[in-house]
Amino acid sequence: MTSSPTPENAARIDGRTADRLRPVTITRNWLDHAEGSVLVEFGRTRVLCAASVTEGVPRWRKGSGLGWVTAEYAMLPRATHDRSDRESVKGRIGGRTHEISRLIGRAVRAVVDYKALGENTIVLDCDVLQADGGTRTAAITGAYVALEDAVSWLRERGAIKGKHEPLTGSVCAVSVGIIDGKPMLDLCYEEDVRAETDMNVVCTGDGKFVEVQGTAEGAPFDRAELGSLLDLAELGCRELTLIQNKALGR
Amino acid sequence: MTSSPTPENAARIDGRTADRLRPVTITRNWLDHAEGSVLVEFGRTRVLCAASVTEGVPRWRKGSGLGWVTAEYAMLPRATHDRSDRESVKGRIGGRTHEISRLIGRAVRAVVDYKALGENTIVLDCDVLQADGGTRTAAITGAYVALEDAVSWLRERGAIKGKHEPLTGSVCAVSVGIIDGKPMLDLCYEEDVRAETDMNVVCTGDGKFVEVQGTAEGAPFDRAELGSLLDLAELGCRELTLIQNKALGR
Amino acid sequence: MTSSPTPENAARIDGRTADRLRPVTITRNWLDHAEGSVLVEFGRTRVLCAASVTEGVPRWRKGSGLGWVTAEYAMLPRATHDRSDRESVKGRIGGRTHEISRLIGRAVRAVVDYKALGENTIVLDCDVLQADGGTRTAAITGAYVALEDAVSWLRERGAIKGKHEPLTGSVCAVSVGIIDGKPMLDLCYEEDVRAETDMNVVCTGDGKFVEVQGTAEGAPFDRAELGSLLDLAELGCRELTLIQNKALGR
Amino acid sequence: MTSSPTPENAARIDGRTADRLRPVTITRNWLDHAEGSVLVEFGRTRVLCAASVTEGVPRWRKGSGLGWVTAEYAMLPRATHDRSDRESVKGRIGGRTHEISRLIGRAVRAVVDYKALGENTIVLDCDVLQADGGTRTAAITGAYVALEDAVSWLRERGAIKGKHEPLTGSVCAVSVGIIDGKPMLDLCYEEDVRAETDMNVVCTGDGKFVEVQGTAEGAPFDRAELGSLLDLAELGCRELTLIQNKALGR
Amino acid sequence: MTSSPTPENAARIDGRTADRLRPVTITRNWLDHAEGSVLVEFGRTRVLCAASVTEGVPRWRKGSGLGWVTAEYAMLPRATHDRSDRESVKGRIGGRTHEISRLIGRAVRAVVDYKALGENTIVLDCDVLQADGGTRTAAITGAYVALEDAVSWLRERGAIKGKHEPLTGSVCAVSVGIIDGKPMLDLCYEEDVRAETDMNVVCTGDGKFVEVQGTAEGAPFDRAELGSLLDLAELGCRELTLIQNKALGR
Amino acid sequence: MTSSPTPENAARIDGRTADRLRPVTITRNWLDHAEGSVLVEFGRTRVLCAASVTEGVPRWRKGSGLGWVTAEYAMLPRATHDRSDRESVKGRIGGRTHEISRLIGRAVRAVVDYKALGENTIVLDCDVLQADGGTRTAAITGAYVALEDAVSWLRERGAIKGKHEPLTGSVCAVSVGIIDGKPMLDLCYEEDVRAETDMNVVCTGDGKFVEVQGTAEGAPFDRAELGSLLDLAELGCRELTLIQNKALGR
Repeated sequence: MTSSPTPENAARIDGRTADRLRPVTITRNWLDHAEGSVLVEFGRTRVLCAASVTEGVPRWRKGSGLGWVTAEYAMLPRATHDRSDRESVKGRIGGRTHEISRLIGRAVRAVVDYKALGENTIVLDCDVLQADGGTRTAAITGAYVALEDAVSWLRERGAIKGKHEPLTGSVCAVSVGIIDGKPMLDLCYEEDVRAETDMNVVCTGDGKFVEVQGTAEGAPFDRAELGSLLDLAELGCRELTLIQNKALGR
Repeated sequence: MTSSPTPENAARIDGRTADRLRPVTITRNWLDHAEGSVLVEFGRTRVLCAASVTEGVPRWRKGSGLGWVTAEYAMLPRATHDRSDRESVKGRIGGRTHEISRLIGRAVRAVVDYKALGENTIVLDCDVLQADGGTRTAAITGAYVALEDAVSWLRERGAIKGKHEPLTGSVCAVSVGIIDGKPMLDLCYEEDVRAETDMNVVCTGDGKFVEVQGTAEGAPFDRAELGSLLDLAELGCRELTLIQNKALGR
Repeated sequence: MTSSPTPENAARIDGRTADRLRPVTITRNWLDHAEGSVLVEFGRTRVLCAASVTEGVPRWRKGSGLGWVTAEYAMLPRATHDRSDRESVKGRIGGRTHEISRLIGRAVRAVVDYKALGENTIVLDCDVLQADGGTRTAAITGAYVALEDAVSWLRERGAIKGKHEPLTGSVCAVSVGIIDGKPMLDLCYEEDVRAETDMNVVCTGDGKFVEVQGTAEGAPFDRAELGSLLDLAELGCRELTLIQNKALGR
Repeated sequence: MTSSPTPENAARIDGRTADRLRPVTITRNWLDHAEGSVLVEFGRTRVLCAASVTEGVPRWRKGSGLGWVTAEYAMLPRATHDRSDRESVKGRIGGRTHEISRLIGRAVRAVVDYKALGENTIVLDCDVLQADGGTRTAAITGAYVALEDAVSWLRERGAIKGKHEPLTGSVCAVSVGIIDGKPMLDLCYEEDVRAETDMNVVCTGDGKFVEVQGTAEGAPFDRAELGSLLDLAELGCRELTLIQNKALGR
Repeated sequence: MTSSPTPENAARIDGRTADRLRPVTITRNWLDHAEGSVLVEFGRTRVLCAASVTEGVPRWRKGSGLGWVTAEYAMLPRATHDRSDRESVKGRIGGRTHEISRLIGRAVRAVVDYKALGENTIVLDCDVLQADGGTRTAAITGAYVALEDAVSWLRERGAIKGKHEPLTGSVCAVSVGIIDGKPMLDLCYEEDVRAETDMNVVCTGDGKFVEVQGTAEGAPFDRAELGSLLDLAELGCRELTLIQNKALGR
Repeated sequence: MTSSPTPENAARIDGRTADRLRPVTITRNWLDHAEGSVLVEFGRTRVLCAASVTEGVPRWRKGSGLGWVTAEYAMLPRATHDRSDRESVKGRIGGRTHEISRLIGRAVRAVVDYKALGENTIVLDCDVLQADGGTRTAAITGAYVALEDAVSWLRERGAIKGKHEPLTGSVCAVSVGIIDGKPMLDLCYEEDVRAETDMNVVCTGDGKFVEVQGTAEGAPFDRAELGSLLDLAELGCRELTLIQNKALGR
């Protein structure tokens, strides 16, 4: 990470420069029962990612020889500044929860070779224990590592039959945004609410895009701003890939 | 990007070139009761957009002097090739429905000046009567026109107090995707299921981005491919803006 | 239709005489995907009826050699004068919706020969696009025509094995009511809310009753009034049968 | 219609003639807490009707000076021959339950003078303890008696302000049907499932109709058959009115 | 029951001494369809217990050779002093209902030998018709008797294959509590709301404990108070066992 | 009861003697946003307890001058050996969850003086991150500590008006059970599933009972066994009280 802090971009709430991630930590095997589990932290954002393996696949996929990977995202009621009601008590999953669960699922599936996985199912539960912005990007970044551990667990048990790797690469994600006209990397909650444009970018370890979701919260953005945001996101994802690899002992 | 058909991009299912929209029609006042209503068609995709005005705003916004605009998206059970179960019968709204409702809401709100609207609420119901790809982009494109009519209805009744326009511009949306390695504009259903990358782009009438949502369905995409898709989307949105203006008699 | 308008019964809101239907139109093949589809209009009431065919029958009926026909009724939120909340969002189907879905199902099943239909299922979706009274009777009248088209579709594909017709006749429905002491045919919304007695009558093409549902909204009614209402309903159903036959090219 | 048994109509399962009710009993004050309560029995059909009074009316009716009466119908899981699942456990009220609750509500409201009742609410809970056909008609017949007791309770407490009676008459109901081509009164379950046509008729004590719901379960019915059924229903309701009056000590 | 009333413990609302049950009656065969049915009354508390037999067991138990017994508890809306909303209408079962259903299930299962029962399922529906305290203990006491009748029904049909009895003993339950510092047996509603400590005790016919659930509603209780409550509960259960046996003609 | 391991009670899975707790740790302030938060561990059981303070009380309690304390319990899907479905996805809270939430609420409310608390509400969220038996007892033990911190937070802000302490004492809980005929303290999951009798006991810091819930999972238990279990539970609660006090720096 080369861009040295300049006076103006040093103005971030926590002293970071515009192009810096918050401290990221990935703790593997945080749970005793799950086949893969990771506590991932992006600053104060803390997400518990658990990978659960079950033999076999959902009924509609039986006999296809293909595996299945899916994800569910949720927040504990007091993950946030103010307590929010439990979705289980309300009896409904909110739109935001649905949307993020789907995003995480698509993101990790981008690196899954279903044929190599064989008829095994892996569910990735991403539960936000504490939220301070970027919960979905932290979840994707952690879920990939938990997924790797679950695949290793399967391999050790001889449940991966073929010679191909079930995972074709790595995947991670980061948020970027424009605040007071300046593009910034990895927004914390306070920055997120002030951002004029907010973008979540999911990248593979070799720097390609899996998902780009940019939204103008305030004024619409132009092609040049979009370019700056993508630059920052690519930078952040390169660093996250290194952190993932280190956590996996590569 | 010129629109003359070349041998290679003439290969689309319906004979269109890669950079052409399907025939788009916007029929205003399709309903008798709604304050604004539009039947919008993108080829065989047919969405009924109804704008409902109510005086006042939700409780949490009362006394703020600000208006409120929201959207709901749904599909009739036989809009699709195979009948799908009703969400009302299942007792739950699916993740996809939630996600698209939220997208439409964000898209139209990008051109709303809540202060100028005053304490009025407009609900935009986008019901897909027939689906052939691009239902969410057709919905956004039609919802904006219905919204204009609802605002005119308010203005005629003297319910817009200030001198500012409640709508600061226009908004439309189009899908783009990469099929067999080629970027294409406004995918129909058959193209959509084959697309390696699929992107929905929401633009304002002056060519800025409100929302960019690109997803790799197959192989991840690189920066150059992203650029080509954005070029096509900008082209499509310029044309949709003209069609909207014409429908509104501008 | 012989009864000439007299000064007193000319007093209806839209100038009709007491014994006249509103203009009724039946547009077949309104949808591209459905095996049968009809847009039926009774004045400003507009209902989209889609017939969806699936091979096979529900589990409890398998191996019986008998087919199955069912119906679902719903209203778009802005079909009505004031917007109503979506039942999918509320997470529950209301009593009225349930009741009308059941009524339509019973009505069309009255002319179905399950044995002749064989193990095929037809679902009739009746979605009210615009409501101005008589939505359930319009739905039944249109659903029958969509059902005929779906049966033809099956026959063309050789899926009707036996020599018997799956439909033993036709079915249609009309509302009648007593307003200011006078019996009237085919009430529009404004009349419906003022009616002292309101009756929905479902008839077969040969003039027999499938369903008679009369309700005193104001004062109870006597046997003579019931008789007058049935007279009017029989008259209206005769005319609707002609319109259905014409739409079907008979 | 004379009630002497003739050879042919003596053929009913329980030895009744076609024009006879099953033994009907009405037990008042079956519950200690409810303001009115009745255990009503039509043969083996047993329905507990409880009238609950609350001061005041629902929000949408406040300040109108008008009262409110509503009804809810339900069945215990083992009221029927085979156990049915609880609607509370399923989390949804079925269409049949909804429909009957609405019918009972309309039936009793036909004799309520809301203005005379004043701003009081009465809820009529009709819970079927045992079902043997005719549960909805037994419920209406019993609910009226419970309602009378609830009104008396209000009057005793001085809560009926005006000089008018809150109930303008009595109401009862009976089922009739055509079995093997013969019209019969008050069908038990075994008859009900065999009926070609099934009709529920709600009458006031002075012999007028509140509701007539006839359905062809098998072949459609003609005007003459409809007439015979109404004759029988009027006969049955006259008798039920006597039984109600006797139970009320009139 | 020997303890003669003394001046101080004569102070109970209904004149009972502290160690006396309310009048308990058990009426068998209260329903015509159910394989076992009991109306059980503890004073004014009245619970209808129906045992429904079905051949076979839930899917997860098939082929095990073991039977299954489960219970559901519910209250009619006007069982209580004030009407409560129906759980079916609310669309959810409340925590209290769930908890009591589970308690009744555990209680009766304590005397079931699943192997002797064979692959048969018995569902015990306990519906409170009137509530005056102790509904769960009355339900358990009645459910056991209904269960005995259902087992006899199975035996008569030859559906009990082995030589072992499916029921290994009897089970009953009673509530005890501390009111104004004094332990009392079988609390009615008015006592229940005043109790400092409230305990429900389920015993087998030979005097052992199946379940002990004591809760301090006011001040916590000590070991000595717990002992006194258990003494009273054992006394009450001995008497209930006698009443059950008498009802069963033993 | 001495705690030295004897040959026979040394047989526990993890080497503990029958009368020993698992290692218990209480980590305060585990979350940044909550007014009180505790990660409590009983061996491998790990529960996150968050206390959320809001000014004011629910509507039905307004103006009473009294506060309100409530609790919600839930499990992450992969807290257990096998993944369980999310209750939010199922749309319903299960009976067990309801029951434990209610138990925790009653337990902590036993030491709350609502008048001293004033019109403030405290919600205690107990989310099981990992389950290995005793989750409800760990939750109660941790929730009390989080509650103390929330009350301190209120006091520091001057929101506790009176001179009385809102908490009148401490509360903790432990499970006991009979395994292979021997009473044991603080069962882990593997022991729990083998227990013939299982009991959860909630005590105050001064050794009184708030709740005693004993269930015979296998053979019913007698008075002497009940006594032994209570002895063990009292011992365990004394130790837990010391651990709570130490965590709170007393």
